Amino acid sequence: MRLDIDRDRLVETMEEQAAIGGTDGGGLNRLALSDADARARDWFVERATAAGLDTRIDAFGNTFARRAGADSDAAPVLVGSHLDSQPYGGIYDGALGVVAALEFVRTLDDHGIETRRPVEVVNWTNEEGSRFPPAMQGSGVWAGAHDIETEYEKTDADGTRLVDELERIGYRGSEPAEPREPYHAYLEVHPEQGPRLDETGADVGVVTGIVGLRWAEVTLHGQANHSGTTPMHYRNDALVAASDVVTAIRRLPGTLGDRTVATVGSLTVDPDSVNIVPETVRFTTDIRDPDEGVLETAIDRMTAEVAAAADREGVGYDIEHTMRAPSVDFPERPVAAVADAVEDLGYDGRRMVSGAGHDATHTASVCDTAMIFAVSEDGKSHTEDEFTSWPDCYRAANVLANAALDLAGRAD
Amino acid sequence: MRLDIDRDRLVETMEEQAAIGGTDGGGLNRLALSDADARARDWFVERATAAGLDTRIDAFGNTFARRAGADSDAAPVLVGSHLDSQPYGGIYDGALGVVAALEFVRTLDDHGIETRRPVEVVNWTNEEGSRFPPAMQGSGVWAGAHDIETEYEKTDADGTRLVDELERIGYRGSEPAEPREPYHAYLEVHPEQGPRLDETGADVGVVTGIVGLRWAEVTLHGQANHSGTTPMHYRNDALVAASDVVTAIRRLPGTLGDRTVATVGSLTVDPDSVNIVPETVRFTTDIRDPDEGVLETAIDRMTAEVAAAADREGVGYDIEHTMRAPSVDFPERPVAAVADAVEDLGYDGRRMVSGAGHDATHTASVCDTAMIFAVSEDGKSHTEDEFTSWPDCYRAANVLANAALDLAGRAD
Repeated sequence: MRLDIDRDRLVETMEEQAAIGGTDGGGLNRLALSDADARARDWFVERATAAGLDTRIDAFGNTFARRAGADSDAAPVLVGSHLDSQPYGGIYDGALGVVAALEFVRTLDDHGIETRRPVEVVNWTNEEGSRFPPAMQGSGVWAGAHDIETEYEKTDADGTRLVDELERIGYRGSEPAEPREPYHAYLEVHPEQGPRLDETGADVGVVTGIVGLRWAEVTLHGQANHSGTTPMHYRNDALVAASDVVTAIRRLPGTLGDRTVATVGSLTVDPDSVNIVPETVRFTTDIRDPDEGVLETAIDRMTAEVAAAADREGVGYDIEHTMRAPSVDFPERPVAAVADAVEDLGYDGRRMVSGAGHDATHTASVCDTAMIFAVSEDGKSHTEDEFTSWPDCYRAANVLANAALDLAGRAD
Repeated sequence: MRLDIDRDRLVETMEEQAAIGGTDGGGLNRLALSDADARARDWFVERATAAGLDTRIDAFGNTFARRAGADSDAAPVLVGSHLDSQPYGGIYDGALGVVAALEFVRTLDDHGIETRRPVEVVNWTNEEGSRFPPAMQGSGVWAGAHDIETEYEKTDADGTRLVDELERIGYRGSEPAEPREPYHAYLEVHPEQGPRLDETGADVGVVTGIVGLRWAEVTLHGQANHSGTTPMHYRNDALVAASDVVTAIRRLPGTLGDRTVATVGSLTVDPDSVNIVPETVRFTTDIRDPDEGVLETAIDRMTAEVAAAADREGVGYDIEHTMRAPSVDFPERPVAAVADAVEDLGYDGRRMVSGAGHDATHTASVCDTAMIFAVSEDGKSHTEDEFTSWPDCYRAANVLANAALDLAGRAD
């Protein structure tokens, strides 16, 4: 028998959370460990407690709410996402995954279903990384990817330490920030943050993995000169060299694969004056692909393009590789549970690889992990204009409920 | 008989002015109407008075120091430049022209020479335009290119009005800021601010005109999107379009003429984040050529490149034409006076067009104007590293003295 979550209650719960740190523009300003984040956390604990769950908070603020299973020794199924937001983000990113997870356990109660495995709902600390770097910090600490003492010392733009904010809002818990037992699986619902589902008219995304990512910062060292008196052949213009690289990076995916994306998102010029030939240009590169081999080739080609452009213009260069996240392939078992639920529910599901990192990136190193994507209208993300229709929220949450029940098993 | 200025006195006078607002890096920080500029102005008045000149200050702070001629009704010869500097400029830019002019009248005294025409030494207000826009402001007001009331209201980065600073330092004079009589000619010595003289091994530049200039600000309007989840074909990347234009502008002079220069000096990206596709990019263009027809063609081609790049990437664009300075051809008579002086002195002179604007740009609309360039080592300008050797200062000043005497005429 299929589970069917309560559509009205899902919407109501989404609207409850959206009121906490809500902006005039209809979005959210709920930066990690801010007062608004603290109120969202309190709200989560209150709702979990009202649903009869046992909550516990770990030393990094990750909050777990447990529903007992028939077999208390069985490895639990973990479901959830994050409640923090970008400075001016939408109301779905993160929150939908937590609300869908809450709705799953409420639906189990509605139907008096006992699962064999325990079920835990999680709200991870600081997925966005907007206030304290890096993104996916809480799940990363929990999974052992980051050292907790190092992350405690991270500071925001005002110089405030993360650990002090965690203490201040009362979410530095007593539990060690690590898996306290083996976990059977982790499932997460999240808006797609891209246009593929909306473009293809699919109902929901069956996420089979997360792309690998390479970030670099390139600096080009030219020579500042007067723009009127310096002949063209006498110039070493760092911006001309940088522009050659930007256009080369735009073409790069076309030489690699149809899932490769490559972006120069940030670029600054010094001295940045109308009548001075640019001396120094710094820019970032962001290259993603599901295939690690493609990524290595992409980095080689990007490096060759920088070297060629610098040589043409007679400027020096440095390349600093600032982030390397390997691609993640979700295992067959949890992906099949999601795909089966999509089929049972009669939805049009699309198998896809996530182009963005998620807390699931880190849980995948701890236990079997998969994700469910909800449609993002026009692919808008990290903006107050982010939009997922209630029917799309409902479908994604319904898939979670059925897939998670499949993985947790019914007590017979 | 050739004049020969006093080389040691020239160096000494250059060193005197360089101590006013001198920086630890061996340059100058003598922004227009600052305390340092006020001290430099006082120093100029004191030195002019000591040389027996009559000084007067006009309503915009331009300071004139007059040496009488035998024919007091004859139109005077004007010589000079500016004493203000960039925030961290060199000790030659501007000051060399004022010191060379002072040295000219002192040398006349040394030799007891009476000129037929009066000679005036001028220190123009705010040539650099670093603190208050625009550059060449004082000469522009004097020549009638700018309205004095408008320029009085200009403010610096702190919101201080120009007229209040002029009052505060005591240089809002009682004379109208305009030519009070017809002028026979204006001559100005200035460092080249470019590498051509140094590159060719010439002694001095015989400047035949000033290039025309067009400035524009281009804005490209793309769409911000997540760098990981947005497929390449779904992007409207303002930085990619801008980069296409930057490389096109690098190539532009090669299609126009060997004296054309074109520069993108300033470029900013919004939102400027590693993992967001750039939404808005603003950049400046600076195109210069001695030929107005070439400039018009250049602007047409630049506009076509912007339109093509915007179309390719599916982004919108605006082009604002922010400055238009027509090219100036100096007349034959004062240029010949300079060229003759160079030849008489046995120097290797190079005829050239100035790639930078100067106060001579404005005086050219009032009277016959020409310029003399001193060698700039490696073409360095607007930096504390600006360097002109003392022999090169001497040669340029000596050319000024002889050319100005030629134009002023000896009383017989």
